[in-house]
Amino acid sequence: MAFQHRHRPSRRRSLDFARDDNEMTALFQTRITELFGLRLPVLAGGLQWLATPDYVAAAAQAGICGFITAASYEDIADLRTAIRRCRDLSEGKPFGVNVSMLPKLVQGERTQAVFDLIVEENVRFVETSGRNPAAYLPALKAAGITVVHKVPAVKYALKAEAEGVDAVAVVGAECGGHPGMDMVGTMVQANVAAAKLSIPLLVGGGIGTGAHLVAALALGADGVVVGTRFLVAEEIWAHADYKQKLIEADETETTLILSSLRNTARVLRNEATATVQALESNGAGIEALMPHISGKVGREAYRTGDWSKAALSVGQSVAFADRIEPLAAIIARFEDEARAALARLKGLSEP
Amino acid sequence: MAFQHRHRPSRRRSLDFARDDNEMTALFQTRITELFGLRLPVLAGGLQWLATPDYVAAAAQAGICGFITAASYEDIADLRTAIRRCRDLSEGKPFGVNVSMLPKLVQGERTQAVFDLIVEENVRFVETSGRNPAAYLPALKAAGITVVHKVPAVKYALKAEAEGVDAVAVVGAECGGHPGMDMVGTMVQANVAAAKLSIPLLVGGGIGTGAHLVAALALGADGVVVGTRFLVAEEIWAHADYKQKLIEADETETTLILSSLRNTARVLRNEATATVQALESNGAGIEALMPHISGKVGREAYRTGDWSKAALSVGQSVAFADRIEPLAAIIARFEDEARAALARLKGLSEP
Repeated sequence: MAFQHRHRPSRRRSLDFARDDNEMTALFQTRITELFGLRLPVLAGGLQWLATPDYVAAAAQAGICGFITAASYEDIADLRTAIRRCRDLSEGKPFGVNVSMLPKLVQGERTQAVFDLIVEENVRFVETSGRNPAAYLPALKAAGITVVHKVPAVKYALKAEAEGVDAVAVVGAECGGHPGMDMVGTMVQANVAAAKLSIPLLVGGGIGTGAHLVAALALGADGVVVGTRFLVAEEIWAHADYKQKLIEADETETTLILSSLRNTARVLRNEATATVQALESNGAGIEALMPHISGKVGREAYRTGDWSKAALSVGQSVAFADRIEPLAAIIARFEDEARAALARLKGLSEP
Repeated sequence: MAFQHRHRPSRRRSLDFARDDNEMTALFQTRITELFGLRLPVLAGGLQWLATPDYVAAAAQAGICGFITAASYEDIADLRTAIRRCRDLSEGKPFGVNVSMLPKLVQGERTQAVFDLIVEENVRFVETSGRNPAAYLPALKAAGITVVHKVPAVKYALKAEAEGVDAVAVVGAECGGHPGMDMVGTMVQANVAAAKLSIPLLVGGGIGTGAHLVAALALGADGVVVGTRFLVAEEIWAHADYKQKLIEADETETTLILSSLRNTARVLRNEATATVQALESNGAGIEALMPHISGKVGREAYRTGDWSKAALSVGQSVAFADRIEPLAAIIARFEDEARAALARLKGLSEP
């Protein structure tokens, strides 16, 4: 193992990874690097409104795989434009589309149209979540598309494996967005999932440093899914005030809402989420909550930078979001951290 | 690194660790193995009613450090007897006493008497929790006692470090018993704690396999604290029906109670905890809750094996408690799992 730290590559050099033999030395080879054709076994999971072609292409150029989030595009034609732009920017490197099938967010008809578009546009990778993708799998498999299904509990992962997805991402209670109802921590869930599943496994929830990647691999995973940690990347279009808030927030500044609707979400704790929690404890239904939790309110908060006014998905790994910089720089540090964690283990076990 | 698996030692052989040069090869040397004089950087945390001299001595003989739980003994004279019995059974190997200073459990006068006894009996290791042990530290330090303070959040760990404890154990949301109010997962908290603390760090909460030890060390910890995983050891005196329930339970079968009293506890989900949750949602105070949560009700449940009748501290790592066997056998498997996790990382990073 090449344990010595290398100098952090400049942005220019990091874009040259695929052409530089030295830089090509991959830190890990796992079933996920093989399945996706990646330099690092890391997926940048879908982020509503934020996982745009520029962000996803930056992930591709840095040697990981990101996913344009279909739910960010009301008009299918706009999603098509985004996919084409991402393909241009990615220069043949891997990227995908995220399809959240939460019934409240996306109607069935719309979901079918999104998958049709994905096939038409020859997208190679899809991240699904929210419901079992079984109904859409035959068409996706026929098109040679690799499907990774993201779930908050091992029981759903086992179901997806039985249905024939190519890989699963199991996210723990720490994750931003939807951790499910059982609230099992990533440390426990990763190891349970690895023991029960046969297909390639990614774990997510609380993954914020390269040390977490090493920990996840030690627990039996083949890679990790990262969301929150990457929100402060330069390529994320949200307002700098929002990113600054993430930089200042520590691991205790997320909170849970919508458990009363059995649709628990982990979000940044703020004025809006306090209001939602008060409404929920008074028995409010979805209609009363929508003005605070709707996607469009969130989009507006990202635009203005007023992070207090909407329920914004943020995981506990916000603790590790420490500066605004290009995604390639975040990923280079992530890789350095992973090397350091391996070196630490080597030092402790070969004193 | 010696990555090959060795045959699981028989109980007899495992008791010979200290005299067998082959078996003595420690898998890890960390600040915790050095501070406590251990073969593995693992502490068996205090367990009210259950961490008896027999259990704690079995931990000592297996090369880790356990703690007799002072709160299990109403009479100080009985605690003295327990300490002496444990010393005999441990044959000079490390063991300690756990002192929970939660105000509701132990009065200040009683706490002073416990610490006086610990000094008198020349106990070398103490695990404190519940409140900052600052007031008692001068006497403990003067007696040359090593103090590890267990906390559910990094802010308390920093405070304890400033007060002069020798090590801290930071437990995440997955832990049985008291995870604190922030509910930060172990995966996140371990790494935050490692970045902020200077003294030796243990992490707990969701630690159930040797792979978790490797993960924790990768995240910057010097060792782990284990509770739930060891509850199915033969040396735990609780009824076999209770252990059988733990063997059958998966990671989703714990629940949280007493958040309404700002004293959140993670316990086995059962009839008693459903009652407690119903009472809490109706605004019940501690008096109404006590018949279900008192320590004596718990002790009776351990005695009879009727696990449905009390709030019993259990963490999410119950998922890994898979059979009743001697503690030495559990720890031997834990070590094998750690070796396998190291071998896995080596294989993935040196393909």
